[in-house]
Formats: sequence, C-alpha cells, structure tokens
Amino acid sequence: MSIKDILYLGDTDLRQQAGYLAGVMSCSGISFDYLPSNLSFDEKLLKNSYKAVVLSDYPSSNFTASQLEKLAEMVKDGTGLIMIGGWESFQGLDGNYSSTPLADILPVNISDSDDRMNVSSPLLISRELPHPVISELPFDKQAPVIGGLNRVTPKPNSEVILRGVKFTASKTESSYTFTQGESYPLLITGFCGKSRTAAFTSDVAPHWAGPLIDWGDARVNAQADGAEAIEVGNYYTQFFSNILKWLTKEI
Amino acid sequence: MSIKDILYLGDTDLRQQAGYLAGVMSCSGISFDYLPSNLSFDEKLLKNSYKAVVLSDYPSSNFTASQLEKLAEMVKDGTGLIMIGGWESFQGLDGNYSSTPLADILPVNISDSDDRMNVSSPLLISRELPHPVISELPFDKQAPVIGGLNRVTPKPNSEVILRGVKFTASKTESSYTFTQGESYPLLITGFCGKSRTAAFTSDVAPHWAGPLIDWGDARVNAQADGAEAIEVGNYYTQFFSNILKWLTKEI
Repeated sequence: MSIKDILYLGDTDLRQQAGYLAGVMSCSGISFDYLPSNLSFDEKLLKNSYKAVVLSDYPSSNFTASQLEKLAEMVKDGTGLIMIGGWESFQGLDGNYSSTPLADILPVNISDSDDRMNVSSPLLISRELPHPVISELPFDKQAPVIGGLNRVTPKPNSEVILRGVKFTASKTESSYTFTQGESYPLLITGFCGKSRTAAFTSDVAPHWAGPLIDWGDARVNAQADGAEAIEVGNYYTQFFSNILKWLTKEI
Repeated sequence: MSIKDILYLGDTDLRQQAGYLAGVMSCSGISFDYLPSNLSFDEKLLKNSYKAVVLSDYPSSNFTASQLEKLAEMVKDGTGLIMIGGWESFQGLDGNYSSTPLADILPVNISDSDDRMNVSSPLLISRELPHPVISELPFDKQAPVIGGLNRVTPKPNSEVILRGVKFTASKTESSYTFTQGESYPLLITGFCGKSRTAAFTSDVAPHWAGPLIDWGDARVNAQADGAEAIEVGNYYTQFFSNILKWLTKEI
C-alpha cells in the first residue's frame, strides 16, 4: 500500500507536460504516485490513502463509471480533490467530466459543451479574495499572464480566489492602449464533507500556463524521479506548492 | 535526392513541439524533410537542394565543424536560412551558436553567454517596419503575447521587422496600470549573397510562443505526416507560413 501524499493523474507523461507539477512537488517535499494521460485508471490505486487527488488533462473516459463513483466517495470521506484545466479537463475537447460524479463534488459547474477559451492577448491573473494559497505572492504588483482556461460556473458556497481578466492591446503610433474585457473564474475553492476541493481552470503546464511558468524573481531548477527536468519561476513553484498543501491541509 | 522545399531541424520531435511548425507547413503546401533535436546532423542531407533551412532548438553540438561550414556555404550559394529561438537556439542554454559559421551569416550577432529572457508579464509583439511577411496581419489592432526570447543584436544592414515590448501590469483597487519597459528584436531579416536570412528570437512552439499560438479569428486544425495534430489560430499559421514563403522567395 502506497503512503504517498498525492495521486497525480494526467498532463500527458512525466517526460512531457507532467514534468512541471512533478518537479514542483519534488522540490516542495510532496510525495506522489503518477499515472499518465494515455493509461486507463488502475482501481488498485483506490486502496491507498492519499491526502489528495490531482486530475489534470486526464480524460474521464480513462475511468469506468464505478471507478468515478468510488473516487467521489473517497473525496466525501476525506481525500482532497483538484481539477486543473486543459483540453482534456473539465469538459474541454476530451475531458467530458460534465455528467460524471466528480462534477457533483467539484466547486464549479462544468459545461456540457466545449468550454475551452484560448486567448492570444494579455489574459492576466487577478486576486479576488485573500486565501492562504496566494498570500505573499505578488499578484497585484506583477500580474502574470496565462494563455487560456476552461470556462466554468462557480457553485454557491464556493469561493473565487483568482480570476483571469482579458485585455486587448492595440497600438497607435508608438503607444499602446489596453482595453479591459471580460473576466473568468480561475481558482475556485470549496468543501465536500471534511475534504477541501478546488478547480484551477488554466493549466499548470504549456501551452495554457504560458508565461505564468516563469513568474518569479528567481529561477527554480527541479526534477522528479523519472521526469523531465524543469527550470521555472519561484512564484510559480510556490503557488502550485501552496495549492497542494492547502488541499492536504498542511496550510 | 529529396526535392522538398525546406529542411527543418529541431523543436524536439514531430510528436512533440515540432508538430506545430510541421502542421503549419502541411496546411500551407510547403514540403519538408525533418530531423529531431536529439539526432546528430546527417551529412547526406546537404546533397539535397532545399530552398531554405529552418533551425529551431537544434543544438549546434549536433553538427561537426565541417558540417556547419558546408551548411554556411549552401546558404551563401542560395539556400535561405532562419534560426527560430528557444533554449537550444542562438546561444540559449544549449544552442551555443555564437562561435559557429552560422553566426557569421545570420542577420544578428549572437551573445557568447546565455541569452534567454523568460517573461511572465505581457511581452507584446510590435510591428516596426512594413514587410511582406507581416502584411495583412493585425499586429497593431490585436497585439499578441509571447513568453520569452533570445536576446540578440541586429547586424548593420539587417532590418528589424518586429520587436517584443515588455510591460508590467499592476493592479490598484480594481484597475490595472500597464508600464512599458524595454523592447527586444524579435523578427530580423537580412541577406547573404543571393539568399534571404532571418532570425525569429521567440519560439514557434510552447512554452515561449505561448499565447501567440492561438492568435486569430478562426481556428486551424492541421497535422503533418507522422506529427502530432495541432489546433491553432489562423493568424499564427499565416505568420509562420509567410516567413517560410519569404525565405524561399515565394513572396
């Protein structure tokens, strides 16, 4: 029986996108078991007592109906749960979580049609509420950019901690005008029984995470066992480390 | 003997980052031979008469000294050449092109130390000069964001067509202030004998290309033979297609 902190599912493979969150966990002292996006869920994993489960670009078709029900039960019984966005998360292109038992326990309602929003102009992260996950991170002073997110609707009793705010940048002569557009829920937290739940609707890895990956005033080099090495920003690392520590009730 | 338009070297692998430029070429009717970033250069390729060579995250250590000289000779004799940025381009983390014969014929001077600049705040593409590569693309109206670039110095007689302009976005109450910072050469064109040469100092693929990948008012789905399928913006596709067609003197 595994006694790891986190069960991490998705983000393609440890040698590809999953190297990012794996690297963050590795340098934050968070232990994890991992399953890549192209492998069906292994029911034996449900016998382990993880503190939290991370689903990120792991299509719902990898689960059987009964596995999804058992996973939802685990969360009701005390395991934290986060879904991180991407083309195979929430509804997405291939996530298809809208009519699964996980949609019932996440803090957001999931659309029943493609919810992807790709943004080429500045999509800035905006702090909406104080929360231990974001304290001491300079969201106001140096707002980082992301490249897209899944559009979700926060449930009543959830808290929207961060939003993505869209700007259009246009140039006349040599000066730029930034026009503020719509904003979208980005980090939403909630509770399910005694468990903490969360949705982060952008990605932790390219391409949606985009410039956020380099957010920081220092560089962090990290590499989990069997994973691609990463070189990222220290605020990026701190932010995702905080999210996982909050889910596992360490902060 | 191959009669393809382009020799494309780098961007990891067709199943990973190289799927982007390969997809663009595929849907633009541009034929190419390809070599991934982890394979040494194959000298037999120099016997083909390509119209242009694309180097993108293909470390200089993949070439022998004599292969680099022969490639430089080919360019002097009429083959177009572009280097596209990344951690294994220009000097980068592992590009190491500063003291190669290619540094002599590219339109920019390459630093002899790490030239990578990762930017988490809005780094906008700014149009500096008219050029067939960028005509009809709305750089002014909808400036797209990139996530980083290699810092290079344009040579005399080169033309800087695009620059990357850095902004810091800060929030007070609910309103944002954008403060313009430095700008950096992004698309630089030149000539070498009868050949056209260019440097694009950001990446064509994640993570540096970031939000630029989705630039457009319509989506493009494309897939080159043996490559990962891509879904990108139509302006992104047009832009890189234009660059290659300019290098091969089709526009």
